[in-house]
Amino acid sequence: MSGGGAPIYNRVALIGLGLIASSMYWAMKRGGVAGHVTGYARSEETRETARRIGLCDTVCDSAEDAVAGADLVVLAVPVGAMGTVAEAIAPHLAPGATVTDVGSVKKEVIAAVGPHIPEGVHFVPGHPLAGTEHSGPESGFSTLFDNRWCLIVPVAGSDPDAVARLTGFWQALGALTDEMDAEHHDLVLAVTSHTPHLIAYTMVGVADDLRRVTDSEVIKYSAAGFRDFTRIAASDPTMWRDVFLTNKEATLEILGRFTEELFALQRAIRKGDGEHLHAYFTRTRAIRRGIIEAGQDTDAPDFGRVKMDR
Amino acid sequence: MSGGGAPIYNRVALIGLGLIASSMYWAMKRGGVAGHVTGYARSEETRETARRIGLCDTVCDSAEDAVAGADLVVLAVPVGAMGTVAEAIAPHLAPGATVTDVGSVKKEVIAAVGPHIPEGVHFVPGHPLAGTEHSGPESGFSTLFDNRWCLIVPVAGSDPDAVARLTGFWQALGALTDEMDAEHHDLVLAVTSHTPHLIAYTMVGVADDLRRVTDSEVIKYSAAGFRDFTRIAASDPTMWRDVFLTNKEATLEILGRFTEELFALQRAIRKGDGEHLHAYFTRTRAIRRGIIEAGQDTDAPDFGRVKMDR
Ligand SMILES: NC(=O)c1ccc[n+]([C@@H]2O[C@H](COP(=O)([O-])OP(=O)(O)OC[C@H]3O[C@@H](n4cnc5c(N)ncnc54)[C@H](OP(=O)(O)O)[C@@H]3O)[C@@H](O)[C@H]2O)c1
Ligand SMILES: NC(=O)c1ccc[n+]([C@@H]2O[C@H](COP(=O)([O-])OP(=O)(O)OC[C@H]3O[C@@H](n4cnc5c(N)ncnc54)[C@H](OP(=O)(O)O)[C@@H]3O)[C@@H](O)[C@H]2O)c1
Repeated sequence: MSGGGAPIYNRVALIGLGLIASSMYWAMKRGGVAGHVTGYARSEETRETARRIGLCDTVCDSAEDAVAGADLVVLAVPVGAMGTVAEAIAPHLAPGATVTDVGSVKKEVIAAVGPHIPEGVHFVPGHPLAGTEHSGPESGFSTLFDNRWCLIVPVAGSDPDAVARLTGFWQALGALTDEMDAEHHDLVLAVTSHTPHLIAYTMVGVADDLRRVTDSEVIKYSAAGFRDFTRIAASDPTMWRDVFLTNKEATLEILGRFTEELFALQRAIRKGDGEHLHAYFTRTRAIRRGIIEAGQDTDAPDFGRVKMDR
Repeated sequence: MSGGGAPIYNRVALIGLGLIASSMYWAMKRGGVAGHVTGYARSEETRETARRIGLCDTVCDSAEDAVAGADLVVLAVPVGAMGTVAEAIAPHLAPGATVTDVGSVKKEVIAAVGPHIPEGVHFVPGHPLAGTEHSGPESGFSTLFDNRWCLIVPVAGSDPDAVARLTGFWQALGALTDEMDAEHHDLVLAVTSHTPHLIAYTMVGVADDLRRVTDSEVIKYSAAGFRDFTRIAASDPTMWRDVFLTNKEATLEILGRFTEELFALQRAIRKGDGEHLHAYFTRTRAIRRGIIEAGQDTDAPDFGRVKMDR
């Protein structure tokens, strides 16, 4: 958020032009973080939109044109598409370049992308923990990453200088950074993001299925709890399908624990065990306080939502 | 939200002075909806706070003083306390008065309160579908009910004039109103509010339990999905214990359906059935669109959160 200083990379290529890539572009412009930014998306429609709204200094019609001469290449496509995209650009990467990704899952992305990275090119995976339920080239905004964490997940043999440079890049986009190994990343995210999303999707589906309660009643009378779920469950289906298919192991582990605890609470309700319920609900309150103190959310009326502001 | 006109009730008594009662007070003042408002809470501490912040025209030291001469008495205590409170005030109710409540569950509240209502006093249950995760006398604000639904749940023999007057009262507080029977109310709320809350509590508890992921990691890296859950799970433990104990039947039914659907999605993840996942996630998106169109939430950056503004 410096706004000044020399660019960290002279030429950055964004492959995929959705929420994350477009937010990165606006944040790069805000901070003077990159010299020239090229972009590529597979559909003509997205490339046209990008040109219309001034997203990227140059929008290219092929991924190979976009990555030519880039010293940073960012893979910002759904997790399941990372391997194919990496394979396509590999022959065109400049020696000494860094390839990173922003995928929500790390172990499988590393397994899919790593083998395509040529000798002399650095691969440093990453994952910014910031998003909204919107997607596409018009959904991005410059402040998305401000004070949010970006996890850097170096692989065996990642060059320390390349890691340090990418870390500085994310900090210049407004993010806090931390390093983590891929296995642990996928478990932490299964708990804090992937399983909650699956649960929200499920609850919204149940509401839709129930014959005795009409959809219009569900919609009209949706109280606070459910409204938050519908927002989460409005996220991009392709992105989330890929997340669950590629972070299978950790998601299934957390789901197993979740159903176990849910059954215990269900039993407490059936048996009228108010003490169990009260104790459980009291414990979960403390976690919320921790989040507010950690600055990841606020107690203020807008509940810490990011503001749309390029 | 008229701001003018004659008061709808000359004397209103609020029994319980938490989020809902205090918001009703500020909304009554804003709209000139009531002549004189008395209030009572069981603890000296809450009554002191109410006096300090000017909550209620008169804060009484007993419930019987508060209801004396009131033409509307509002029971705004946890659902499990409604029966005891109704029993205590019953002998002191003025003939022709209306007793209402704001409890989140209706069937059991009606069963607990109804028998105590003396001949010549009207009983018209209600439930405003508006809240935050905050509680207590200082958490209320005048705009809480604006454009939110308040469900009026008349009982057998509810006087039509008393129902109409209470309906007008809620509209003057800013709410939209609808009538529903108690059984259906409890099912709709089990879907849109009670089960989602239980699920959020459970997920937050699972995160807290997991030994390989520290609480501080969960807190630091909590992404959007989980942050919303912690907010929901920060709600008052007593209120929610009572909700689950009293809306047992409907909650258990919805929980049964929820686990059934969750198991189907879990199986799809295990088998790598991306089509099933994608189709499910696409369907749930439509519900969100419906909610935005119904005006129960917005697509704007503050996500339709109410503003604190007395
Ligand atoms: N959204 C979040 O909350 C969030 C947060 C952190 C990380 N992430 C990760 O960031 C990445 C991008 O997410 P996003 O939210 O920016 O997505 P998005 O807004 O849906 O954009 C996705 C982009 O990827 C392209 N794409 C989709 N499928 C492709 C395929 N099979 N081959 C090549 N390109 C394809 C799309 O191209 P067209 O427009 O031409 O179809 C689009 O430009 C994902 O890996 C996701 O896991 C997302
Ligand atoms: N919060 C929501 O989102 C929401 C939304 C719609 C409806 N409701 C319903 O509204 C009612 C009140 O909720 P609220 O959020 O306003 O609660 P709150 O802020 O926690 O306040 C509860 C009030 O009830 C009193 N109280 C608690 N236990 C009692 C008992 N055993 N006997 C007598 N009084 C007792 C408390 O007195 P002290 O302060 O003296 O302890 C306090 O004044 C509940 O029935 C709830 O189901 C809540």
